[in-house]
Amino acid sequence: MSERGLLIVLSGPSGVGKGTVRKAIFESEDNDFQYSISMTTRKKRVGEIEGVDYFFRTREEFEALIEAGEMLEYAEYVNNYYGTPLSYVNKTLDEGKDVFLEIEVQGAMQVKEKVPDGVFIFLTPPDLTELKSRILGRGTDDLAVVEKRMRIAREEIEMMSNYDYAVVNDKVEFAVKRIKEIISSEHYRVNRVIDKYKEMLKGM
Amino acid sequence: MSERGLLIVLSGPSGVGKGTVRKAIFESEDNDFQYSISMTTRKKRVGEIEGVDYFFRTREEFEALIEAGEMLEYAEYVNNYYGTPLSYVNKTLDEGKDVFLEIEVQGAMQVKEKVPDGVFIFLTPPDLTELKSRILGRGTDDLAVVEKRMRIAREEIEMMSNYDYAVVNDKVEFAVKRIKEIISSEHYRVNRVIDKYKEMLKGM
Repeated sequence: MSERGLLIVLSGPSGVGKGTVRKAIFESEDNDFQYSISMTTRKKRVGEIEGVDYFFRTREEFEALIEAGEMLEYAEYVNNYYGTPLSYVNKTLDEGKDVFLEIEVQGAMQVKEKVPDGVFIFLTPPDLTELKSRILGRGTDDLAVVEKRMRIAREEIEMMSNYDYAVVNDKVEFAVKRIKEIISSEHYRVNRVIDKYKEMLKGM
Repeated sequence: MSERGLLIVLSGPSGVGKGTVRKAIFESEDNDFQYSISMTTRKKRVGEIEGVDYFFRTREEFEALIEAGEMLEYAEYVNNYYGTPLSYVNKTLDEGKDVFLEIEVQGAMQVKEKVPDGVFIFLTPPDLTELKSRILGRGTDDLAVVEKRMRIAREEIEMMSNYDYAVVNDKVEFAVKRIKEIISSEHYRVNRVIDKYKEMLKGM
């Protein structure tokens, strides 16, 4: 009996380097998960392949999927939809493979509602650990600047509280190592494996 | 501001190899935690050092500590008490160091009551993953043998459900690697770091 895969969601404030970390994870050795292929309504560019780069759909098709609850998360940017089709994710998880999503915080919160047992990782900028010095600046900043920094820091922390893990992106290779440790150890969680054992007992 | 250390509890059914795995962890590189020194009422043996091998106490002193709620866990074997003094553990955690306990399942459940945010790791025998074949045997075992195996397997699974992680001890080096991944990733858990960030914001 094979275990169901884990849904891993990497997110964080914009500009934190999510894409770079995700790319480094997939380029690293012994990664054993599937990158979720997004769906979009934007035009296919030269060299892009359906089902590899994106699932390309018309606006009408995409909206029908939203309507039917078939999108795990989606958002609209510059008049085009981008999102994660639920069916592809579920199919991959059922095959026992982990699925890795790298998405914006708004999308991550949509996923959390639909898949609460996913693993939600918040990538934090390295300066969040130097919060105090950054906010206070060098004593030469005016009040408006300090207040803006305070507001941003507060918002980042509020977002973080919805996640399971906070990983500092001080250096890409460190962030990759931490994320891989998290994924490994999540596979050892009792609540993920105990059903398998119980079922083995029941089936006799 | 330094983070409080983690209390890591390694336990599992007797004979699973807890002691061997614990020793291998402490002999391995880049381990950064403190092994909790036990307290006992048994006589000091030649070469043993107070505060290194054990804290040696009289029966009266030990019972006074139990009475005062100063033992994190304890048990009596062959007319001697063995246990973990709370004060030593708390002092070490407050210094920001992780504390590692390797104890029997009865003791682990006492710890869980007192320190629910500890990290509880259940070491499972490799055959638990081969449960079915082991229990069914080679078809030549009589009913009593199969029933005894069923009972033991059921008890082990019941115990496991009180833990956070289940680590298979198929090979000591693999078990060590898994436990280290768990400890690292527990340090990234949002609920362990968010107070630090919030406090930084508040303190300004």
